[in-house]
Amino acid sequence: MNFPSRLMEDAVNAFATLPGIGKKTALRLVLHVLKQSPEKVDAFGEAIIKMRHDIQFCQTCHNVSDDSICSICSSPRRDQAIICVVEGLRDVMAIESTQQYNGTYHVLGGVISPIEGIGPDVLNIDTLLLRVKKGGIKEVILAISPTIEGDTTMFYITKQLRESGLAPSTLARGIAFGGELEYADEVTLGRAIASRRPYEMD
Amino acid sequence: MNFPSRLMEDAVNAFATLPGIGKKTALRLVLHVLKQSPEKVDAFGEAIIKMRHDIQFCQTCHNVSDDSICSICSSPRRDQAIICVVEGLRDVMAIESTQQYNGTYHVLGGVISPIEGIGPDVLNIDTLLLRVKKGGIKEVILAISPTIEGDTTMFYITKQLRESGLAPSTLARGIAFGGELEYADEVTLGRAIASRRPYEMD
Repeated sequence: MNFPSRLMEDAVNAFATLPGIGKKTALRLVLHVLKQSPEKVDAFGEAIIKMRHDIQFCQTCHNVSDDSICSICSSPRRDQAIICVVEGLRDVMAIESTQQYNGTYHVLGGVISPIEGIGPDVLNIDTLLLRVKKGGIKEVILAISPTIEGDTTMFYITKQLRESGLAPSTLARGIAFGGELEYADEVTLGRAIASRRPYEMD
Repeated sequence: MNFPSRLMEDAVNAFATLPGIGKKTALRLVLHVLKQSPEKVDAFGEAIIKMRHDIQFCQTCHNVSDDSICSICSSPRRDQAIICVVEGLRDVMAIESTQQYNGTYHVLGGVISPIEGIGPDVLNIDTLLLRVKKGGIKEVILAISPTIEGDTTMFYITKQLRESGLAPSTLARGIAFGGELEYADEVTLGRAIASRRPYEMD
């Protein structure tokens, strides 16, 4: 592209560093920015810069936080004796939006993946074991995606936790609510039949 | 969405003000930003803030510029006697990338559109007439999209320019290079036949 201005070229290149945004989209965003008031553009840029500088990771659960301990880990209204182990903070947000969970979290920061060189040591597993060893934890829920890597991670954590005398639970597997049987994959359907349970009328 | 951090929520909302970027995409961008070094994020935010504050519009042609007169209007290698009138700076970039034009530009900032309340007075038409009246201009090319609004704008400008004794030219219309005849619309094809020209063997 032939840019009429160096400043504009720099801004287009800045937007184009973002994932999923190419040069053409970046140019469209820059033309939008040019139409905004300087104050609004300042607020935009500063919100992102401030977030990157000031955001912290909770010292207990490793979730992103505005303070050294996150609002969930420091809340007296949450059950601090239950830990839900998740891969990333998107999972925390997803579970929080169900409004069905009142315990705390532990963000691993990924799953064990030998192919990508991610071993248990780079994940936040040691701090999870420390939390459990400290005592006072009555349940650990493994809310990790049932992929090969996820299963490996759950297996690894379960093995470690058993040494502390704790058997973790995991999310229920089966047919999704509102899902149609014929579109369920064979493994899910097969296991759902094998793990059939009494029908609840209410 | 339930955000674990206010700082994060502000950054997601900032990204979501951009056109075509919803909350989910904004969150993806924020998670990307969190993985970058603070220095890189500073550079990103500052490139956009700096552009918005420091960018200027060329006093002659109204194209975006790093200085009060743009690099094209101030270049001795460009033919300052030819003006190519365009709607916006995207058109300048498109024509520049053809490397087929060596004159200057005049950016109107839109086209006449009574429906949207855009009259000739809000466009940069008066400054175009001033440039021509000053003298030294031997050709004005109207490179405006052949839409109803574009045609209205070209008609208006042509009428004004004729008072200065100048008949503007416009872009050639016809079948696009590499375009297939059967897919050309009827108006284009009909006019291309009417305006047929001698076949050039080389």
